[in-house]
Amino acid sequence: MDMVRLRIDLGYDGTDFVGWAKQPGLRSVQTELEIAIKTVCRLDGHPRVAAAGRTDAGVHARAQVAQVDLPADAIGLTPVELFIESLTYRLRGYLPRDIAIRRVQLAPPGFDARFSALSRRYRYRVCDDPRELDPWRRRDTLEYPRPLDVDLLNQAAALFMGQHDFAAFCRKKPRATTIRTVLDARWERRCDRRTGEPTAMIKMSITADAFCHSMVRSLVGGMLAVGDGRRDLDWLGEYLNQQERGPDVTVAAARGLILDHVEYPPAEELAARAQLTRSRRE
Amino acid sequence: MDMVRLRIDLGYDGTDFVGWAKQPGLRSVQTELEIAIKTVCRLDGHPRVAAAGRTDAGVHARAQVAQVDLPADAIGLTPVELFIESLTYRLRGYLPRDIAIRRVQLAPPGFDARFSALSRRYRYRVCDDPRELDPWRRRDTLEYPRPLDVDLLNQAAALFMGQHDFAAFCRKKPRATTIRTVLDARWERRCDRRTGEPTAMIKMSITADAFCHSMVRSLVGGMLAVGDGRRDLDWLGEYLNQQERGPDVTVAAARGLILDHVEYPPAEELAARAQLTRSRRE
Repeated sequence: MDMVRLRIDLGYDGTDFVGWAKQPGLRSVQTELEIAIKTVCRLDGHPRVAAAGRTDAGVHARAQVAQVDLPADAIGLTPVELFIESLTYRLRGYLPRDIAIRRVQLAPPGFDARFSALSRRYRYRVCDDPRELDPWRRRDTLEYPRPLDVDLLNQAAALFMGQHDFAAFCRKKPRATTIRTVLDARWERRCDRRTGEPTAMIKMSITADAFCHSMVRSLVGGMLAVGDGRRDLDWLGEYLNQQERGPDVTVAAARGLILDHVEYPPAEELAARAQLTRSRRE
Repeated sequence: MDMVRLRIDLGYDGTDFVGWAKQPGLRSVQTELEIAIKTVCRLDGHPRVAAAGRTDAGVHARAQVAQVDLPADAIGLTPVELFIESLTYRLRGYLPRDIAIRRVQLAPPGFDARFSALSRRYRYRVCDDPRELDPWRRRDTLEYPRPLDVDLLNQAAALFMGQHDFAAFCRKKPRATTIRTVLDARWERRCDRRTGEPTAMIKMSITADAFCHSMVRSLVGGMLAVGDGRRDLDWLGEYLNQQERGPDVTVAAARGLILDHVEYPPAEELAARAQLTRSRRE
């Protein structure tokens, strides 16, 4: 049967999900989206939705990119633009309030939400004076009980730049490489817009070709240990080089983490990029 | 019995409260705080907590100011600074996660959280392209389906500046004046910190000596009707002058509203200010 691939850009509040990926009997973003598509398109079979970043339980997404393949007869004779407009409207009506559909569009030829991606950007929010945190931001911010030095955090982030084997920061999977390339990593303390004074809000942004399971949160855990003075940069550098997971680095809480952006190459390179990624991962 | 007055600065996520003020059988911030104080201070009687701004159901507070009078024997022989430090710690441990104690301190002589206040500042958050809103900000942001013109919003806000009878924007209470003085009111569209581009996030800030019941949200409703072009400035000016509530102005949703700041005079003027406010209101 002819299939039509759609690209779906979406955001979600990860608080009440077990993560992106479906797990039997539990509430996942993938399942909610699959059920919504099946229902509003009146499909017989269960559609298979894939995403650029399989976020963990509690992790939020501002700009997740997903794809779904629909049988061409689900669209029928409706002009495809009209079908997509109507689908977008009906998905927004059907989905719960913690999932937000940004945009639905026809995927260009060769597009694969996961394997065509060039890079992912994540953000992490920390408040190093919990008394200053607005209670309604406890959903997307880590409350950190010790003051953090942003210069030290940035020196720690610099250690991760470039290509490394991040095995020390990853949950191991058999026969999967843990070599990744970090393209950018930086911390910034927010200043009050009104007064210009530094606040207790600190944000990290990190971009890599891809991340292993729980890698961003482990990197954050390692950097925070340096940023609050408990550990020094040498310790973190050695930990990275040991290439094996140890008990010294804690995984930072999921609620501070947001999938912020997924970057794709120009349309004509989508298929080649997907092929290259697949061959590297396997 | 000798009483000791404490000033309590706190914030809360208003989503799951019926508002500041207690209502039998319902979850209010006042009740949560009174029970917490009674419990951690092991009081026999029920303490009476009052606040600067009696926020409605769903309204948030970044900087609510409350007060409580404790019998001096609850403090006993403990140095008062130590008692307050310990009380703060225990309150933070006891209270639910949607209430955040910023600071507890001994109230200066003559201090009255409500009647000594010179002014209150509220903020309101609107997103005029709901697709752009992060789902976890739906708790503190109004999703507005029509594009808003910030210049028009600011011209509407200017109509409210100064002293007016705001009866058209207030829920009437017998024998209570609805004359208030708006000291500042402005709207601003946020720009992306990275790109400098305007975003869909619009924030209002409004300061007045005091606000009547549901007044801020009614003012916001009136300004939004002008900002999206459905109504013009003349209409809003006439509505203000008619000094009677009409069906034309909708009360904007509570979730976008935050009590942001309460201003008090210097210590030596606290008592006189409280007396002046009381005489004016009655």
